[in-house]
Amino acid sequence: MSIQTRSGMQRGTITKYRPFTPIELPDRQWPSKMITTAPTWCSVDLRDGNQALPIPMSVDEKLEMFDLLVGVGFKEIEVGFPSASQTEYEFMRRLIEEDHIPDDVTIQVLVQSREELISRTFESLRGAKKAIVHLYNSTSEQQRRIVFGLDKPAIVDIAVRGVRQIKDLVASVPETAITLQYSPESFSLTEIDFALEICEAVVDVWQPTPAQKIILNLPTTVEVSTPNIHADQIEWFCRHMRNRETAIISLHTHNDRGTGVASTEMGLLAGAERVEGTLFGNGERTGNVDIVTLALNMYTQGVDPCLNFSDLPAIQEIYEKCTRLSVPMRQPYAGELVFTAFSGSHQDAINKGMNALEKSHSPLWDVPYLPIDPKDIGRSYEAIIRINSQSGKGGVAYLMESEFGLQMPKAMHIEFGKVIKHLADVRGSEILSSELYQAFEQEYLQRTAPFKLTSFEGRTILNKAGSEALECIATVNINDVPHEIRGQGNGPIDAFVRALNQHGLANFTLKSYSEHALGNDASTQAVAYIQLQTPAGAFFGAALDTNIEIASIKAVLSALNRSTQPIKFN
Amino acid sequence: MSIQTRSGMQRGTITKYRPFTPIELPDRQWPSKMITTAPTWCSVDLRDGNQALPIPMSVDEKLEMFDLLVGVGFKEIEVGFPSASQTEYEFMRRLIEEDHIPDDVTIQVLVQSREELISRTFESLRGAKKAIVHLYNSTSEQQRRIVFGLDKPAIVDIAVRGVRQIKDLVASVPETAITLQYSPESFSLTEIDFALEICEAVVDVWQPTPAQKIILNLPTTVEVSTPNIHADQIEWFCRHMRNRETAIISLHTHNDRGTGVASTEMGLLAGAERVEGTLFGNGERTGNVDIVTLALNMYTQGVDPCLNFSDLPAIQEIYEKCTRLSVPMRQPYAGELVFTAFSGSHQDAINKGMNALEKSHSPLWDVPYLPIDPKDIGRSYEAIIRINSQSGKGGVAYLMESEFGLQMPKAMHIEFGKVIKHLADVRGSEILSSELYQAFEQEYLQRTAPFKLTSFEGRTILNKAGSEALECIATVNINDVPHEIRGQGNGPIDAFVRALNQHGLANFTLKSYSEHALGNDASTQAVAYIQLQTPAGAFFGAALDTNIEIASIKAVLSALNRSTQPIKFN
Repeated sequence: MSIQTRSGMQRGTITKYRPFTPIELPDRQWPSKMITTAPTWCSVDLRDGNQALPIPMSVDEKLEMFDLLVGVGFKEIEVGFPSASQTEYEFMRRLIEEDHIPDDVTIQVLVQSREELISRTFESLRGAKKAIVHLYNSTSEQQRRIVFGLDKPAIVDIAVRGVRQIKDLVASVPETAITLQYSPESFSLTEIDFALEICEAVVDVWQPTPAQKIILNLPTTVEVSTPNIHADQIEWFCRHMRNRETAIISLHTHNDRGTGVASTEMGLLAGAERVEGTLFGNGERTGNVDIVTLALNMYTQGVDPCLNFSDLPAIQEIYEKCTRLSVPMRQPYAGELVFTAFSGSHQDAINKGMNALEKSHSPLWDVPYLPIDPKDIGRSYEAIIRINSQSGKGGVAYLMESEFGLQMPKAMHIEFGKVIKHLADVRGSEILSSELYQAFEQEYLQRTAPFKLTSFEGRTILNKAGSEALECIATVNINDVPHEIRGQGNGPIDAFVRALNQHGLANFTLKSYSEHALGNDASTQAVAYIQLQTPAGAFFGAALDTNIEIASIKAVLSALNRSTQPIKFN
Repeated sequence: MSIQTRSGMQRGTITKYRPFTPIELPDRQWPSKMITTAPTWCSVDLRDGNQALPIPMSVDEKLEMFDLLVGVGFKEIEVGFPSASQTEYEFMRRLIEEDHIPDDVTIQVLVQSREELISRTFESLRGAKKAIVHLYNSTSEQQRRIVFGLDKPAIVDIAVRGVRQIKDLVASVPETAITLQYSPESFSLTEIDFALEICEAVVDVWQPTPAQKIILNLPTTVEVSTPNIHADQIEWFCRHMRNRETAIISLHTHNDRGTGVASTEMGLLAGAERVEGTLFGNGERTGNVDIVTLALNMYTQGVDPCLNFSDLPAIQEIYEKCTRLSVPMRQPYAGELVFTAFSGSHQDAINKGMNALEKSHSPLWDVPYLPIDPKDIGRSYEAIIRINSQSGKGGVAYLMESEFGLQMPKAMHIEFGKVIKHLADVRGSEILSSELYQAFEQEYLQRTAPFKLTSFEGRTILNKAGSEALECIATVNINDVPHEIRGQGNGPIDAFVRALNQHGLANFTLKSYSEHALGNDASTQAVAYIQLQTPAGAFFGAALDTNIEIASIKAVLSALNRSTQPIKFN
């Protein structure tokens, strides 16, 4: 293959980029430390996460996400930027007025250091029992020069003015316990001594105490170095800060270099006590750090993360619904392929480990290739895996399409996935893709009893005036007894459905249908998928025919037959 | 929401897991080091990557992947496990016999330390100019106890016997320059002194020299610790090894804890010189380390990675085709959402940075929120933009489905994506989803000139004998002049297509069609998508109608009209 170069990468001596200047910290202590307790977690799913969605969450979806975050165990949740938009403001008001916030959960609101935004933020807070007001301004040399055109004192002044205003406004919400959080945004690119200077200026105004701490959040807004340098930045900051005991040092890492998890872990080794992130790593560009991975990494090292991911698939389902994003197949802990073993030697080692564990009655998890017991997080290990239930409904649907060209509708993936799961359970072994097709045939295409189509005649007319009608005359055998039926509708399926119902032969409505060609020309077969709602539930049917209309009609009967007879496999 | 707990996570004191025991290395040097040159890269896409695919690559796909890897610039490529299966053996033979291997590329073959497998491996190598024979056996305490039931000397013996056999077999392939690579598999879980012991036993037999080095590959087969501990393992090994100058220390990290990239980077700081991994991080479970991310991380620190990702989208396309996997939306550098900015303040800062850069004529990339110039890797930045061309054809298709229920066929995503890209370029601004639908209407649904359907009558008959026929009689206006046409086929579309062609009104074939209901009952509208092959190229058409048959017929004319008239937007 030849690679087309447009602008392209520089080769040899790279003049376009230069290395990040490391922190001078030869006596760093963090590499000898271990993580022994969970940090305070703060979810930013509803703010940093939501902001980066191609389709942002609706207010109802935000509420569902908020409830999910509370259910997982987050005690601090950044719910938005209420001064930035009416939607975010209204969401805040709804959270407070409809009493969605448990007593042990603190909401957090983001605000830039601008007077009118801070005022509006405090209006949004009225009635909340407690809140973290999260003030930020950008501090890096790059941002000062390019974006603000201001020198260091002017940047410090922006922060300090904001803090003074917040301090004054605290009295306006007497029922709300306010904690201040300050972020020198773009901390990772800020000269470390200036980051400390601006934070200390903020501290001097706010006057926190060991009992009423300030949160200093030191974001890796953009990852610009290896995680060890980030750890040096955090340790340097913690060691040089005056009155360290009056502050909670917080991390907020993004993932531009694919090292967000490591940066957070090393930042914790370096002295940080709090972590901001999102479920599954949603967020701007490459995302925020993934709190699921962080928490389960701690758990597998014997540290209680104080977050509950015991049913990770259920959490993932709500997350995917609200964000419209998919968790990648190889995402640690959550990805569809994570608890599979394709290699025979891996499968063998896992089996031996499982057996040894069962015999030993040891409480300690000790199975090769599986760093966590999948059951701890509501998942399971399966060894197959060309096809099995763990490879998932998506995998089954994928193979049906790639191997046999069958593009089943989404809702049918679930139904056929269960058919295959059942088959896999009965077999207790791998299912070949040829067997997959056999199962499809047995379950859908060969379902011709009790209802069987023996003749069908349809007549479609579009008059020049534009009015439409279709009449069908069909013969349906029920347990080999022929019934001739007639019906009218706005298409052949509609006419046939009406005919069956009107003649009292069945009782159902059409829920969905779709059809596509199998192959690339007009004379090949078509496949039709029909979903019926019957008194016994919803059932899909499917049929093949060179005539697309006949395929649809047969698919109606396939579904109807499936609704009357249970699954059988041999 | 309530989380269903099955087995579930332990809370409080965790007895099921315990922390990894760190390495004693208080005077570690790696945290003060920087990465200043690229390592030797070895792609394991065709082995570790391919092995973990739900559908492994065909031989043709493997060849395409091999060519891609050569094109990217890999000089060492692990091509398989030729003694494990006939397919892998034949792929090896094809590579050699069809002369696919450039002179500056060394192929690598994996083999377990078993006599018959090693013999077979050497048979597969015949005719190759050079090759790395990669011998491995598993060495961790867990594997020795659970899987092999052997003590340390017996495990060392397995490795040493393998090396002796390989040494003897070198003479059997006199035309091939053989390098030995040895992996103590499960190195990350192996006691560090035993890992060194077994490697030194291997070295003692092989007798490498500074001119003819051995490769010692130290895999993180499963990630079991934070990356700093992995770095300590590597530094400890490098510092304690006898005759360090006769070995190339190689890394092979997986991503179970989401820190594969960081582990590799810190392993390089700790003294390793070679990296095994895959494009985009494909591989068992959570995957191997992603070499694209590693290489571009180096590049953005001013280090030439000696791999060419100047057209990353083209590389990604071949990768996705061969592996049938998708690169996640937020994957560093490659993900669809990585060069987007949703936040207004980010958009503003990026614009200011771009403008400043243009004025300064500085060679140095210096734009907030973008750690790399997207043009370097064949991509572009777009300020999002709920919808624009950067949000991609997948994003457009997703919105068309989620917002309007339109499930366009895959091939149509590309065509409609171009329509939207064109619209975005003309506008130079964000496209709202309502405008997306308008564009769809304008481009497909309202295409009724020059061809317009004014009447259609179809008659489908299935005789009791089972033979089928459909005849259609239709009136088509061409530039407002009515033409009555007749045709026969095995369905209404087929009949109509034949009628148009037979009457000399058009010249095309049907490429694909699909249809689905819009809504959940039989009386709602259906949408049909038709792709035609015309002398001017392939074109999709689409149409809505309450009658599915009429929708298909109209869609044929929509496609035909599109083939005769260019896109227009106002």
